[in-house]
Amino acid sequence: MATEGPRRIRKLTGHFLEEFRPGQVFRHKGGKTVTEGLFATFTEFSMTSNPLAKNARYARAYGFEGLVCPPGLAMLVCFSQTVEDVSENARANLEYLDMRFGAPLYVGDTVEVETKVLGVRPSTSQPNLGIVHVQSTARKNLGGPGERVVLTWQRKVQVYKRDEAAPLHAGEVAPDEIACALELPAYDPRREYRALAHLSSPDSYFEDLEPGTLIEHSRGRTMTDEHIHLTAVLDNTSQVHCNQFMIDLDPGRYVGGRLIVFGGIPFVLCLGLSSPDVGDNALGDVAYRTGRHTAPLFAGDTVFAATEVLGRRDFPGRPDLGIVDTRLLGHKFVRAEGASHPDAPAGWKRTRLFELERAIALKRRSHYLA
Amino acid sequence: MATEGPRRIRKLTGHFLEEFRPGQVFRHKGGKTVTEGLFATFTEFSMTSNPLAKNARYARAYGFEGLVCPPGLAMLVCFSQTVEDVSENARANLEYLDMRFGAPLYVGDTVEVETKVLGVRPSTSQPNLGIVHVQSTARKNLGGPGERVVLTWQRKVQVYKRDEAAPLHAGEVAPDEIACALELPAYDPRREYRALAHLSSPDSYFEDLEPGTLIEHSRGRTMTDEHIHLTAVLDNTSQVHCNQFMIDLDPGRYVGGRLIVFGGIPFVLCLGLSSPDVGDNALGDVAYRTGRHTAPLFAGDTVFAATEVLGRRDFPGRPDLGIVDTRLLGHKFVRAEGASHPDAPAGWKRTRLFELERAIALKRRSHYLA
Amino acid sequence: MATEGPRRIRKLTGHFLEEFRPGQVFRHKGGKTVTEGLFATFTEFSMTSNPLAKNARYARAYGFEGLVCPPGLAMLVCFSQTVEDVSENARANLEYLDMRFGAPLYVGDTVEVETKVLGVRPSTSQPNLGIVHVQSTARKNLGGPGERVVLTWQRKVQVYKRDEAAPLHAGEVAPDEIACALELPAYDPRREYRALAHLSSPDSYFEDLEPGTLIEHSRGRTMTDEHIHLTAVLDNTSQVHCNQFMIDLDPGRYVGGRLIVFGGIPFVLCLGLSSPDVGDNALGDVAYRTGRHTAPLFAGDTVFAATEVLGRRDFPGRPDLGIVDTRLLGHKFVRAEGASHPDAPAGWKRTRLFELERAIALKRRSHYLA
Repeated sequence: MATEGPRRIRKLTGHFLEEFRPGQVFRHKGGKTVTEGLFATFTEFSMTSNPLAKNARYARAYGFEGLVCPPGLAMLVCFSQTVEDVSENARANLEYLDMRFGAPLYVGDTVEVETKVLGVRPSTSQPNLGIVHVQSTARKNLGGPGERVVLTWQRKVQVYKRDEAAPLHAGEVAPDEIACALELPAYDPRREYRALAHLSSPDSYFEDLEPGTLIEHSRGRTMTDEHIHLTAVLDNTSQVHCNQFMIDLDPGRYVGGRLIVFGGIPFVLCLGLSSPDVGDNALGDVAYRTGRHTAPLFAGDTVFAATEVLGRRDFPGRPDLGIVDTRLLGHKFVRAEGASHPDAPAGWKRTRLFELERAIALKRRSHYLA
Repeated sequence: MATEGPRRIRKLTGHFLEEFRPGQVFRHKGGKTVTEGLFATFTEFSMTSNPLAKNARYARAYGFEGLVCPPGLAMLVCFSQTVEDVSENARANLEYLDMRFGAPLYVGDTVEVETKVLGVRPSTSQPNLGIVHVQSTARKNLGGPGERVVLTWQRKVQVYKRDEAAPLHAGEVAPDEIACALELPAYDPRREYRALAHLSSPDSYFEDLEPGTLIEHSRGRTMTDEHIHLTAVLDNTSQVHCNQFMIDLDPGRYVGGRLIVFGGIPFVLCLGLSSPDVGDNALGDVAYRTGRHTAPLFAGDTVFAATEVLGRRDFPGRPDLGIVDTRLLGHKFVRAEGASHPDAPAGWKRTRLFELERAIALKRRSHYLA
Repeated sequence: MATEGPRRIRKLTGHFLEEFRPGQVFRHKGGKTVTEGLFATFTEFSMTSNPLAKNARYARAYGFEGLVCPPGLAMLVCFSQTVEDVSENARANLEYLDMRFGAPLYVGDTVEVETKVLGVRPSTSQPNLGIVHVQSTARKNLGGPGERVVLTWQRKVQVYKRDEAAPLHAGEVAPDEIACALELPAYDPRREYRALAHLSSPDSYFEDLEPGTLIEHSRGRTMTDEHIHLTAVLDNTSQVHCNQFMIDLDPGRYVGGRLIVFGGIPFVLCLGLSSPDVGDNALGDVAYRTGRHTAPLFAGDTVFAATEVLGRRDFPGRPDLGIVDTRLLGHKFVRAEGASHPDAPAGWKRTRLFELERAIALKRRSHYLA
């Protein structure tokens, strides 16, 4: 005898591999207004030391409207808007490509994002997986006079199929041309930049960063299970970061059988840890040409960062600035008893968390200190 | 020989059963201004996806002043102001009754609350306990042109006596009539609501919610000991949520011998978890007719939510809206090796955390999408 | 065969004992704008109950510009700006001296700090350590009409040498005279102070605090590893609070072999825990004549506070106020099986965390309630 009761339904969230079509466009739900709460949570967490994100007097003296979201925060706010539609059912982010920054992001701005599907292809070895290639663009203050592109990027994501037998919309389309280049306040020789020079690191100007050096940033930061909250703050809804019960039901399916820290968390932290050595005198990040995660991070791990200086070039139209091309590396140490590794203390092994090609717009000593 | 020293005193906080009198009114201390820090902390924690709380452009397009506190946050801010006077020395909240929402709560608003004691009666079985029945009303921006009622509600609380032998002021008085109904910006046919429709869930309008269905919301969220901080953010001073030493002194007295998570935390979280399915297109919650906690939550548990759709009705005077009557259910899973339960995966048992009768004011598809 | 690769460099942060010179002045990097995020995080964490920090209506009625940073938050924001230069390589803070408050600190204010080295001397027993004595002053809104001194203080810090053989710049110079006294809005007899009196504690006015009493504040608060985040929020970069890997490499070097909680955290928490009994009716803290940490705090410990009332005196020029001289004591309990201690429950021992001589500016009952 059946008991009468309500009809049970469960809505799935996010999309599965067979639902993506090349050329398809998602206008993502939600949108995000940058509150002082969001700004403070992430800026402080990241340990950035760039005064543009700490000191409104300094930021305004440089011609910004007020405190400026550090590039890592801008990136995470924009990126996270795409998670539900693109990667809630993903196994992994494989690669970030051609990420370019546009207008500065301020407290009070509202970000909305759209994504075009550039390609869909099956996995060659795993029938329940495939790769989705997308291009996303984040704009702020849509429909008003302050509308601007904040960030544009591509990424490749490994996504699960809902039904292994479903056919795919495999194929590729060309990316859109998105006008997006770093917008900075003009250099004004009448401003008293020198009077504020003590507020940033004295040895991290354009001229100070020598190609061919690898800077091991001295600070480290231990992650705790705060990562669950930080991920929610970003509206990232992926369950592998916050649903331990799901993992307990099938621990073998998930790396380490534990909640994995959202890759954006160590990324923004490493940007901050690198800040005293390479970021204090940046007016912005220009672009991240490529980037990828290489190992998972868990609560209890301590995160470190290093920056390899690859090259220096002019910033077109801005003799006061230069661009430094770098590679940002995140890593942690894992116990490896008995082993000896050149890059780690005895008994430990260095594990690379991610790497990112990062072009930084830096003040020239000649214009801001001389 | 006595050593000379200062005279030691210890002030007790909160009230005990014998101190309550029917008809007594508390004007609660403190008050609370909603900062962007408070707003962001709780809105993000709750995982709400209603754009009114995420996207200021959307909220203003609907005629609100700016980002709107989700109903769970409004409820917790108001409720917590009453904890010190009413329930700091409580054993449990037994029931919430006739909770009605009034004006929207915005960043910058200041809430102040008063409570009338409606009834006091002894426990029939436990001489050191009894039940206090109260009616509370929260107003914002008192004394100015923006003064409004935000929330009114009743609750019944099981409170300890300080002195088992003390006589009680047992009795009952009638509740006050409190004018409090959901205040919403008017529908304006000239506004371009459709242009923003992609920002909220496409299948959670008034017409989409079918009475007789039970929606299992797909996301879960693991609680951590962050609950201690979240409870402090709300000014909830009850020691069972934050004083582990007190529990270590007498673990048998406290459920689980551990800090218990403040019941408002899973409540606000379940409102958020239910949001993509039933809350995205709400303009507000109308009323919670009854509600009660049914099991404790601890750090480490993962919280899930379900919504039972009970009925649909018109929203008086607003053809663009309708009211959906629902029951919001919170639950977690606990290990039950060997057992088989219909509502849970093998080896687990579903434990109900709370239930709440919830009336939601939802947009009609006919007016916002057609 | 050498492998070719980038030249590795590691910049050290902070200064070591041999780098300090008497008379030297640091203008500290960064600066700090008080956002609503920072304000809310710390004000709520601290459990303060003074309405000046909770209720903007109350704060404005008293003539303040808006919500007022509690003295503990003002102190921590200012103090932390000095950590990188003065104490990033410190073993311990030995003593705080002559800390005096000036202008109130509000949301939106930007703080910048400078420090003069008053003295350097070697340790008599440990060749790798010595003591640096500094005087720091924090100003807000530099260069504008709102420029004010917020706080001035001295401290003595035990700092490591980088090179044990390096000579020291031992010696002393006199402190600067810093004009810094508590700035408060004027008392205005036409204001309706009485109408707001229910918002603060009724029994903690100037007249209520009896010299010769020791008030054991009733609430306790368990610390979690949230302290890592809280320390970062303050820009305190000391690695002993956040880098567990550094400790794992040499656990014997660090007290307890664990991350130690930044001493400012229990300090601000104890100010909050004491608030219902001695702080609710304060308009500000006047000065902390001396203070020092006496035991470390770890995640998992529960913090308690007590206040010894030492004396009462007039507030010059303000008949509506008085100054109460107190000693604020922080403590925790550690297990001590078998032992019996007069100040602790059986099986536990009370451990003093810090003590601070604290002069509080309190409203007189005669002017605000009569």
